Amino acid sequence: MLSLLVAALLQSAAPAVPPAPAATPADPLPEDWVAIPDDEVMVITLANGGTVSVRLAPAMAPVHVANIRALVGAHWWDATSIYRVQDNYVAQWGDATEKKPLPPGITLRPPAEYDRPGTSAVARLGRRDPYADWAGYSRDGWPLAGNFQSEWMPHCYGMVGVGRDMAPDTGSGAELYVAIGHGPRALDRNVALVGRVVEGIERVSVLPRGTGDLGFYKTEGERVPIATVRLASEIPAASRPRYEYRRTDNPRFTAWIAGRENRQPPFFVVPAGGADICNAMPPVRRGAAAQ
Amino acid sequence: MLSLLVAALLQSAAPAVPPAPAATPADPLPEDWVAIPDDEVMVITLANGGTVSVRLAPAMAPVHVANIRALVGAHWWDATSIYRVQDNYVAQWGDATEKKPLPPGITLRPPAEYDRPGTSAVARLGRRDPYADWAGYSRDGWPLAGNFQSEWMPHCYGMVGVGRDMAPDTGSGAELYVAIGHGPRALDRNVALVGRVVEGIERVSVLPRGTGDLGFYKTEGERVPIATVRLASEIPAASRPRYEYRRTDNPRFTAWIAGRENRQPPFFVVPAGGADICNAMPPVRRGAAAQ
Repeated sequence: MLSLLVAALLQSAAPAVPPAPAATPADPLPEDWVAIPDDEVMVITLANGGTVSVRLAPAMAPVHVANIRALVGAHWWDATSIYRVQDNYVAQWGDATEKKPLPPGITLRPPAEYDRPGTSAVARLGRRDPYADWAGYSRDGWPLAGNFQSEWMPHCYGMVGVGRDMAPDTGSGAELYVAIGHGPRALDRNVALVGRVVEGIERVSVLPRGTGDLGFYKTEGERVPIATVRLASEIPAASRPRYEYRRTDNPRFTAWIAGRENRQPPFFVVPAGGADICNAMPPVRRGAAAQ
Repeated sequence: MLSLLVAALLQSAAPAVPPAPAATPADPLPEDWVAIPDDEVMVITLANGGTVSVRLAPAMAPVHVANIRALVGAHWWDATSIYRVQDNYVAQWGDATEKKPLPPGITLRPPAEYDRPGTSAVARLGRRDPYADWAGYSRDGWPLAGNFQSEWMPHCYGMVGVGRDMAPDTGSGAELYVAIGHGPRALDRNVALVGRVVEGIERVSVLPRGTGDLGFYKTEGERVPIATVRLASEIPAASRPRYEYRRTDNPRFTAWIAGRENRQPPFFVVPAGGADICNAMPPVRRGAAAQ
């Protein structure tokens, strides 16, 4: 069998692992975990009761995230659906009828928040990325890719983006998708990414693939109903989920990167000497209190 | 909504698209499609009737593939199960009891067929790969990665590998897995890859994720029963599935690569200038006759 160890080494970003008695240079200190604000967490509750939590990225796509917060505030996604699931690509949700009016206060034509000037990464991977000159991490736990002039978030598994039609349309934010296969990185800098699923992605990735073109469900009955979408700040404190990101601007995280780039014996015989940003996503874990 | 066009451009490797009236430089000629031999195709039939077809790679891992053919010939996987499904990682199948005796003729300790000397790629991607010095394609339609001395197949979505325990064990081939998330490339050169799912991956990728450690199903009842596993050559001709790979040693394929590396308007506004091998998997399609 594929060993337990390899999967543990490879897969988990180890957020749930308590500090080991014998600390390694990659082990986080307690202060490396920082609460994610409650109004930065969007909780999707499916009609079957399952929940999916998305961390929003207001600093990366401020107008789109403002739209999303307004849509959540109006409870606009309540009683909508996941209407498209395409294997090794995306699951997409919103108003499948395309007739539901948007609430007031929505910017209908947001700017193209696909990238931003400058390079704010505080930690980087060692090798060049196939889609960018570098890949790395923001201080507050977002994956980044970039060149010498600008940076953007990469389309990795679990990243959430804004559906749109042909350019220069950028999408209002009412139709969202999440990547559920190999990161569709060609979308980088072509679509606005607005966040990342931090818990519950497996409630989406298992959904039946749509048999219509591009994974759209052919009939209304196949759609997966969404009960509610709320910001965590709207959810009563007793049942509110809370999350923490791991800071990236410290030598523990640098050691963590090195560990992702060079897996160790006894399972691994050849360390790669590099890693793909989508296989080295910055850790997020459940937290005790959000702020 | 995420447009129909973008998904078509991004996702489909276009094997099903007939030659357009206005041919592009990337359109294959009829002779670019080559039949995959029937004894190179392994058909897994689940108890629910769904089938999953795997193209085997005997040239890359000859001893492991010989074992797999012997196991198929003995109908060894009949009435076994998929016993592990880990989100964004792998689904794994075989004998969950670990007690079923192997048939005669199996090499119990195969050599480490993780890579091979030389570089046989006839086409390459333009940018460096995070896990290798180059990425490209064999003439007969396999993805490759390599350095100056050797080459290997990359762990992309849909690639099939041999479960093993700690090195130097390489696994007999009786326990197999398929990648169902972002390509777990750190496994490259550490595990024997033996093939690729060419049809039916969505019958595996939707399976419930195991809630035990590493995605193992906790109870026997959760396991997904496998009815039979057969080589296509064992299946009556009338119902035998047949596949073709697209040759890579021609200017049409070079143009196809360029198209994957630089997506075009009207949807795309920024071409990436590069692609990840796992987002540019060589096309395979259903064929009329296998040989």
